[in-house]
Amino acid sequence: MDTSVGIVKTQSVTLFEKPNELKLDCGQTLGPVVVAYETYGELSPQHDNAILICHALSGDAHAAGVHHADDPKPGWWDNMIGPDKGIDTNKYFVICSNVLGGCKGTTGPGSINPATGKKWGLGFPVITIADMVRVQKELVSHLGISRLLAVIGGSMGGMQVLEWAIRYPDRVAAAVPIATTTRLSAQAIAFNAVGRNAIAADPNFCAGEYYGKASPGRGLAIARMIGHITYLSEDSMHKKFGRTLRNADNYKYELESEFSVETYLDYQGRRFVERFDANSYLYITKAIDYFDLTASFGSMEQTFANIQSRFLVISFSSDWLFPPSHSEQMVRAMLASNKDVTYCNIESPYGHDAFLLEEKVLGDILGGFLESIYRYRRTGQAVAPLVENPVKHINGTRHEYPVIEELIRPNSSVLDLGCGNGSLLQILAERLAIDGRGIEIQQDRIVESVRRGVTVIQHDLNTGLPKYPDDTFDYIILSQTLPEVQQPEQVFNEMLRIGKIAIVSFPNFASWQARIQFLIKGRAPITSYMPEAWYRTERIRFLSLKDFEDFCRRIGAKIIQKVALSKNGLRIPLLDNFLAEQAVYVIAREEKE
Amino acid sequence: MDTSVGIVKTQSVTLFEKPNELKLDCGQTLGPVVVAYETYGELSPQHDNAILICHALSGDAHAAGVHHADDPKPGWWDNMIGPDKGIDTNKYFVICSNVLGGCKGTTGPGSINPATGKKWGLGFPVITIADMVRVQKELVSHLGISRLLAVIGGSMGGMQVLEWAIRYPDRVAAAVPIATTTRLSAQAIAFNAVGRNAIAADPNFCAGEYYGKASPGRGLAIARMIGHITYLSEDSMHKKFGRTLRNADNYKYELESEFSVETYLDYQGRRFVERFDANSYLYITKAIDYFDLTASFGSMEQTFANIQSRFLVISFSSDWLFPPSHSEQMVRAMLASNKDVTYCNIESPYGHDAFLLEEKVLGDILGGFLESIYRYRRTGQAVAPLVENPVKHINGTRHEYPVIEELIRPNSSVLDLGCGNGSLLQILAERLAIDGRGIEIQQDRIVESVRRGVTVIQHDLNTGLPKYPDDTFDYIILSQTLPEVQQPEQVFNEMLRIGKIAIVSFPNFASWQARIQFLIKGRAPITSYMPEAWYRTERIRFLSLKDFEDFCRRIGAKIIQKVALSKNGLRIPLLDNFLAEQAVYVIAREEKE
Repeated sequence: MDTSVGIVKTQSVTLFEKPNELKLDCGQTLGPVVVAYETYGELSPQHDNAILICHALSGDAHAAGVHHADDPKPGWWDNMIGPDKGIDTNKYFVICSNVLGGCKGTTGPGSINPATGKKWGLGFPVITIADMVRVQKELVSHLGISRLLAVIGGSMGGMQVLEWAIRYPDRVAAAVPIATTTRLSAQAIAFNAVGRNAIAADPNFCAGEYYGKASPGRGLAIARMIGHITYLSEDSMHKKFGRTLRNADNYKYELESEFSVETYLDYQGRRFVERFDANSYLYITKAIDYFDLTASFGSMEQTFANIQSRFLVISFSSDWLFPPSHSEQMVRAMLASNKDVTYCNIESPYGHDAFLLEEKVLGDILGGFLESIYRYRRTGQAVAPLVENPVKHINGTRHEYPVIEELIRPNSSVLDLGCGNGSLLQILAERLAIDGRGIEIQQDRIVESVRRGVTVIQHDLNTGLPKYPDDTFDYIILSQTLPEVQQPEQVFNEMLRIGKIAIVSFPNFASWQARIQFLIKGRAPITSYMPEAWYRTERIRFLSLKDFEDFCRRIGAKIIQKVALSKNGLRIPLLDNFLAEQAVYVIAREEKE
Repeated sequence: MDTSVGIVKTQSVTLFEKPNELKLDCGQTLGPVVVAYETYGELSPQHDNAILICHALSGDAHAAGVHHADDPKPGWWDNMIGPDKGIDTNKYFVICSNVLGGCKGTTGPGSINPATGKKWGLGFPVITIADMVRVQKELVSHLGISRLLAVIGGSMGGMQVLEWAIRYPDRVAAAVPIATTTRLSAQAIAFNAVGRNAIAADPNFCAGEYYGKASPGRGLAIARMIGHITYLSEDSMHKKFGRTLRNADNYKYELESEFSVETYLDYQGRRFVERFDANSYLYITKAIDYFDLTASFGSMEQTFANIQSRFLVISFSSDWLFPPSHSEQMVRAMLASNKDVTYCNIESPYGHDAFLLEEKVLGDILGGFLESIYRYRRTGQAVAPLVENPVKHINGTRHEYPVIEELIRPNSSVLDLGCGNGSLLQILAERLAIDGRGIEIQQDRIVESVRRGVTVIQHDLNTGLPKYPDDTFDYIILSQTLPEVQQPEQVFNEMLRIGKIAIVSFPNFASWQARIQFLIKGRAPITSYMPEAWYRTERIRFLSLKDFEDFCRRIGAKIIQKVALSKNGLRIPLLDNFLAEQAVYVIAREEKE
């Protein structure tokens, strides 16, 4: 039980008592509202360490720990919440509540309608994600917290996170929407609609008036089966079940369930019926279908225009229900007004369910991000202090790093393209107090950057740069990444638009060593900055200082400064295209300077 | 009505009369079996132009034309079958029959069981795709056709195509499985299982004994809705429906269907119930679930070991029900025993339904392929005769082409890596009677190759070569493609394994023009064979003749012959690394020569 929060108890509070009833999006009012919730960890005396967890469609307030000593089933996110886990209850006070409309203690269609004394059934008002969040806000205020350190949730929980950050920007220091979307896709609406159809078609449904009688279990089970398929990936289903038969080697040539995947879904359907109310399923899926932030705000950019929280957006590569492209859209919209957002698309085979399963990488990235948020809240410094000799953080000897450091003004804003593990941005933050952002493609480097407290976007430079506003950054750094860029003209035009100054370093293809190898031997050159044979290298472009200078003229860039370096990092004042092994250029758009 | 087959009539024949009853996979016998079918076009006197079309889950025998002059709805594949269409009824005799177990005229659970005089219902035996094909084979024999020119089908129709080619290899000249798989995935089984659950849960189902009473329409409609979602892509649903509401601007805050996608699915469900029998849906989906060629044959390679048909395999990029990876696996398995297979993964947004919608590209590729099959059957020559000066077929002046032609023995087998539009293979087939195969990545070039009658695989060389057996080809050609290959060592090792001799041509990076530019100007060279600036080129490797010769030594390849060419295609006998602008090498593995 070392990393468990131990035995916990679901608590309950009654909010929105008359005359302060809850005003719903549908126009009706609702009250009183009972809210079931759990908490883990201790609230700090300053009340600055509270994290709200938002659950998904079939979740509840019981996110971590167990309900009694023999309880075999811990809370639904127990692998993420606990001492020394991603959401560390040694540091943070964690809250999770059952959503409005739910069936696990919070007011919903199975609750008593005070006006009639009978259960609401389909008389319950249609609710929205925003309504759920209104109830959570009241709960958080009731607990004495005026500003949350973070709101975190996956799937429908991620929708609540977005609502929080957009509707209550001053109430949320950080927002972590995971495997979610700003608006439900037509495909996902379709799956929900079929599930609701199955419930409504169940002869036991009786227009929702089934309480105290047989419940529409077959319909609800079918809805759950459909949902369950959408939570997994084809790949993970293939690995988990393949085409194996349950308890048989050969086909029975009967119509009943016989594949393992069929009996598994039958089982999941039956289990779900035991713990979930069909009416809640109808109301909650409808709330999900209605979720569309852009419809409320006009455009994706406007949706995020007023957020103040730092964001960590996470998607999963094999999630086809809320695919990575939806998270990427959200991130692009935030960048269009240069919001502080970190994004990682985690490589995972588990589909949408990955947010419950990828505990290692999710724990690492969440832990690093929350640490940075908390550090910033307490000290005003987001980036982790350098604990070692910074040279140790750098792969190989990067003679251009000190040159770049010299070229940058203190307190400026910097975007590092291909930022690697974030070490350069960390150094510049520590020494020059810059406001840094990184772009990187590799997941492990992104996780490492986040753990250093560096804001970083997972993005492929070969698709162009994100649409930051003009002149967002004082400096844009492209250090040793140029030979791998597929569309240099496009990338440089964007760099010079969104940055005031660009700092570019690359190896010189026309150094004297290279020229001699080529001239005398007639072979593709190999030097210390281009160490690989032609058939092994991943660099796709070879250019000299002169090539780069021609290129600058071509794209209308002015060269402000040039620093040519020898193999040992010494500065070369003359004949640089012949003598230099690499160069650092400072350039800007002609009309800018 | 110019390109329509006009008014057609569904015909009917009774087969498998006692004592020649149909032996089913389940062990039972069935007979007599009534088969509903249609035909279009004229059977040739030689009976060599018959094409069988196999329909998908919800299809029937009515594939083309209309049933009466005012009929608003033509057959399900009317855009593909007709005069001058992809399957040209001016040339071919086309047959389509309703499958066994269906509900559109062929014997199925809604037919009378002769033993009881009542409808079969769930007493109908469980059938398989192979059983469906047994019935089709009997029909084809009844029509006086001993060998089909082609069997073509999409989705479940593609499964029937595979069964035909594998079980009756001498009966099928060509096989065209479209958007299909050799075995249903766990995910697809799961969707089918939920659909069957919905039918069984319908209170009208009565264990299948609903004939003459209210049918289980709600259950069948739910099953159809689920199926329908899987036939579309997220993208196509987004484009078709987005989040628009049906007949409203704002949410109603009621639980009923209001999004367009919901009302569309409701409509599709209702329409389906009017034309389809729920019991047939159970039996046919079960047959699809059971489909697993590898389970019958041990491995994918063994599955295709005995096929004699030429294959055209087609998948669609956005099909997630039967994804392109399943077709690729099938193609790889065929190549492992060097079967004659052409493969194209058509870029389409329409998901699985693309096989009904992508009429232009599908018509082009099918038309070209069938033409080649028919030409081969009539003349023994698959490749189209050269109608123009072949030089016109070639992009730019390719001085290496005559050199390559001289190096190749008549009647040999040739694999062309990066074969482009197939012109080189066409020339070599016409002049040297070679047996040629191509590998190409671009769809438009593949379509063009197929129209020339060239067998070609859509494949990315940067993922390695397909696993052909050792020494499959006399020659492997890699003409001007080397600079774009990302893993040259891997590709060359594979080339030298599957080919006896490799012929490689590439531009010389160390020509005197290039060296002088580089030495004097210190700029990345631009020559007639490397015409693009460093920031524009897609070539990712630069190498000289000497670099290539070093490389050959490194990978254990012996250089048998070298032809160095000047800018104007003249042969250069001396100082080739200095003078040549390009070179053609003939190489082989050391131990082979």
